[in-house]
Amino acid sequence: MTVALGEYQRLAASLNVDALALVPGPNFTRALGHSFMSHERPFLLVIPAEAPPAAIVPNLELGSWELVGFQGAVFDWRDQDGYAAAFEALAAHFPMRRLAVEGQVMRVFVHHALKQAMPDLEILDAEQKISGLRMIKTASDIAALEAAIRISERALNRVLQGVQVGQTEKEVEAALIQALFAEGADALAFSPIVAAADNSARPHAHARSDYRIRSGDALLFDFGARKDGFCADITRTVFVGAVSEEGRAVYDTVLRANLAGLEATRAGVTAHEIDDVVTGVLEASPFADRIRTKTGHGLGRDVHEAPYIMRGNHEVLPAGTVYTNEPGLYGPGKFGVRIEDDVLITEGGYRTLTTFPKELMIVG
Amino acid sequence: MTVALGEYQRLAASLNVDALALVPGPNFTRALGHSFMSHERPFLLVIPAEAPPAAIVPNLELGSWELVGFQGAVFDWRDQDGYAAAFEALAAHFPMRRLAVEGQVMRVFVHHALKQAMPDLEILDAEQKISGLRMIKTASDIAALEAAIRISERALNRVLQGVQVGQTEKEVEAALIQALFAEGADALAFSPIVAAADNSARPHAHARSDYRIRSGDALLFDFGARKDGFCADITRTVFVGAVSEEGRAVYDTVLRANLAGLEATRAGVTAHEIDDVVTGVLEASPFADRIRTKTGHGLGRDVHEAPYIMRGNHEVLPAGTVYTNEPGLYGPGKFGVRIEDDVLITEGGYRTLTTFPKELMIVG
Repeated sequence: MTVALGEYQRLAASLNVDALALVPGPNFTRALGHSFMSHERPFLLVIPAEAPPAAIVPNLELGSWELVGFQGAVFDWRDQDGYAAAFEALAAHFPMRRLAVEGQVMRVFVHHALKQAMPDLEILDAEQKISGLRMIKTASDIAALEAAIRISERALNRVLQGVQVGQTEKEVEAALIQALFAEGADALAFSPIVAAADNSARPHAHARSDYRIRSGDALLFDFGARKDGFCADITRTVFVGAVSEEGRAVYDTVLRANLAGLEATRAGVTAHEIDDVVTGVLEASPFADRIRTKTGHGLGRDVHEAPYIMRGNHEVLPAGTVYTNEPGLYGPGKFGVRIEDDVLITEGGYRTLTTFPKELMIVG
Repeated sequence: MTVALGEYQRLAASLNVDALALVPGPNFTRALGHSFMSHERPFLLVIPAEAPPAAIVPNLELGSWELVGFQGAVFDWRDQDGYAAAFEALAAHFPMRRLAVEGQVMRVFVHHALKQAMPDLEILDAEQKISGLRMIKTASDIAALEAAIRISERALNRVLQGVQVGQTEKEVEAALIQALFAEGADALAFSPIVAAADNSARPHAHARSDYRIRSGDALLFDFGARKDGFCADITRTVFVGAVSEEGRAVYDTVLRANLAGLEATRAGVTAHEIDDVVTGVLEASPFADRIRTKTGHGLGRDVHEAPYIMRGNHEVLPAGTVYTNEPGLYGPGKFGVRIEDDVLITEGGYRTLTTFPKELMIVG
């Protein structure tokens, strides 16, 4: 059994459940050391507090499953037969009353299959606790994060050199994606955001093919490479050709909020305290009505994971936590500015894993 | 209200539920004409059979949501406040007893939020019916599929010209991904499979960085571009440098199965009948013990969708359905061969949307 399974076993015991269940996704990959797809096929790893683990595996995955070196019962099923019998076999093998699951990863059809085989089963959403095991990063996690971030920064550097008035957001987005893979990304951590002018005021904008970048536009990039299972998540906002007084003032405000958040970062700080400092800077500015988002989120195998850096979250952040410090100001119909660093919390303070400059930059 | 919402409304009525719920994913995008991310944030579109629609929208998405032109009640929520109040407001606005959901898209945390606000709510998994509305493709759906397929085929053509003995699977995979974006992909339809030799015998193999391609190896590519929201899904297996007698015999068997499946394809055939013909060819060969998978699956906005082409599925397939015809033979420790076409069912027969040659090809 891998080290990671032992950890999940202890968590099951502490949650007072019969077992934890993992489905393909970041925790599954971390526990097994191999990634799998699920699509329409239930695929389930059950880790009891006391007994050996068990798994429900689609038959066509058995050839890949053998690479895992799994020590436990395996119930496989074929598309033609359906999966109900595999869930019944699991229920007979290891009857359960309480099962902790990853509520943000497991889909409803698996929930229903579990309840059909075990109608009295209580299914608890233990997402926070289960994914929380990933919060403190190991040295190799941090190395993978830094690799993903370096790739992302090199890609942004390439793209900024080519940005010109008259390009569409879609064209710039295509150049960014190609640069990410050319620089060595395994995948995209998420679908990138490339948004100019009024579109940059939408926190999750989609690149447009019918708007051509003009001189004076803000141009926001929020993107990241995935490398060896870890995600970068970086935002930089530049101005094309020129910057207005207002653009400069908003940019300076956001940068001050970002820097204040960094200064507040050290092991033992709470998520609330960081957000309070960051959002406090924005609130004290003339642009307080342009606040739309919290400070940020944890980053690792998933692009959004615990801890969530927001007021009201009084979770204490230990050394080894990596979070995004991404204040933004969003003026509807005008423009938005967001600056996002990936920050490692250390005993004495912090280390920004992102190294891309944050001074106001005029390109094109 | 868009045309697509009317369709979901009628489905809700026919399922005898109070409403359908959609969450970000292919149906959500189709219904609204805009795509959204969800990550850790519940985002819900509720389409009652009789009443106007309603939605739960993360506050930071409101700027993008206004592009939808949604006619209905919107309950937004902020990260700092949590989403429970938005679900309670929805429950007060439109009390429900039975709700149909997409079981393969909705995650357990949304299920739990619904149950917390409405403890007596019965949540039905209507995935097949809801996603089934996408089964018959429109002319513009088919145009988008063909665009995604053309991009994919041009990328494969580029990559095959560069394949050489001594490369790793990872290197070939990286070249394929770069070629897909260079040819115009918006995204990858799924994480590509590039697998040589014994690894090609795993239907969902991962590319290795520690195996160098040798002369005589089978080399399997299963991949696709996503373009304008639609997915290509193509498999071709080539041989590098040379092919063994066994390689040729297996290849010919798989190709005959693929062609037999095409010949059996016309509007009115059942999924069972196609799989029976295809799998029948494999079963009648000396390689029957190498069968691992069914014939294929529907293809569109999702890379795996209805109909599933397998024995036991007696669903009648209408004109306009697009499915993958992807027989394969997998010899553990030896090699695998899969040939996959994307096939449009027409009144009189079929049209293969994939045009890449299927004759046995020796490269490098």
